[in-house]
Amino acid sequence: MKKGGKTRLERFIARMVGQRCGIDAAAAATGRLPGVVWELGLGNGRTYDHLRDRFAGRDIIVFDRQVVAHPDCIPPSDMTRLGDFRDTVPLEAARSAGAVAVVHADIGSGDIAASRALGRWLAPLCVQALAAGGYLVGDQPMDDTALQPIALADIGAGDVPPDTYFVYRKRA
Amino acid sequence: MKKGGKTRLERFIARMVGQRCGIDAAAAATGRLPGVVWELGLGNGRTYDHLRDRFAGRDIIVFDRQVVAHPDCIPPSDMTRLGDFRDTVPLEAARSAGAVAVVHADIGSGDIAASRALGRWLAPLCVQALAAGGYLVGDQPMDDTALQPIALADIGAGDVPPDTYFVYRKRA
Repeated sequence: MKKGGKTRLERFIARMVGQRCGIDAAAAATGRLPGVVWELGLGNGRTYDHLRDRFAGRDIIVFDRQVVAHPDCIPPSDMTRLGDFRDTVPLEAARSAGAVAVVHADIGSGDIAASRALGRWLAPLCVQALAAGGYLVGDQPMDDTALQPIALADIGAGDVPPDTYFVYRKRA
Repeated sequence: MKKGGKTRLERFIARMVGQRCGIDAAAAATGRLPGVVWELGLGNGRTYDHLRDRFAGRDIIVFDRQVVAHPDCIPPSDMTRLGDFRDTVPLEAARSAGAVAVVHADIGSGDIAASRALGRWLAPLCVQALAAGGYLVGDQPMDDTALQPIALADIGAGDVPPDTYFVYRKRA
């Protein structure tokens, strides 16, 4: 029940705050970097709404199995990559190699082992897609020598437990 | 998209923070008041987990159509009132009249008019159920002369827009 001394409501709030701070930090740091944004996992579109505000003017490519978002948060169909990540992401990573400014990857499910495995599989594809100096923000740790971890405390999210959300900068 | 200048992610975080601050304020204010707690709307059980932490030792009566919560957050069956609020709440309000210390009512749906109407219908039943000095915390405004509104700014949620979450104290 109280993992790390926090209730599920408190952990959920921390996760959302970590997500918002990570995205906002990525937007601030990549303002002069050209490139598209990737949203891995659309869900109800809440984060997509935040991304299109913070990355106004950029194309946002959205990956999910299906579009079940709020009617106000449906991406343009030419920006949508429908299907299993294992099919859609490698294809788009090859197409957009080095041309992605920011990846947001909210990919976890209730199955922690499967979520971590998906993160490990995804990491090199994000590295392939990202421009040097691009940001990766997500709910899974992604260990790759090309990715420099950014501490949550350094982006104004010092109250958020460090394993809650993850931010990386692709090295030059 | 940007209602009140905020994205859906920002409004969602504000709502969760308002909820947590409202519940914590109710717990602090009712520490010496006997009575049970009502949870109207179990959902995935995230807030129930918070309530059972903040109101440890109290019975928490949970109302919902069905139990679809996380396996860790299933209330005891004798504390569960299954069915439509319009059937279960009046019955329990008569049974527990004046014996409820805190009501948490997270009852809104995407249909704002229907949510407001449900709140108006629920307000007098909450007044009937609550002990004098008891708290009502919820996502709908509840206008009743017996309910004294508590400003979010007075419970440490000054950053949360005032129409995000609502806290009331039943007058003596």
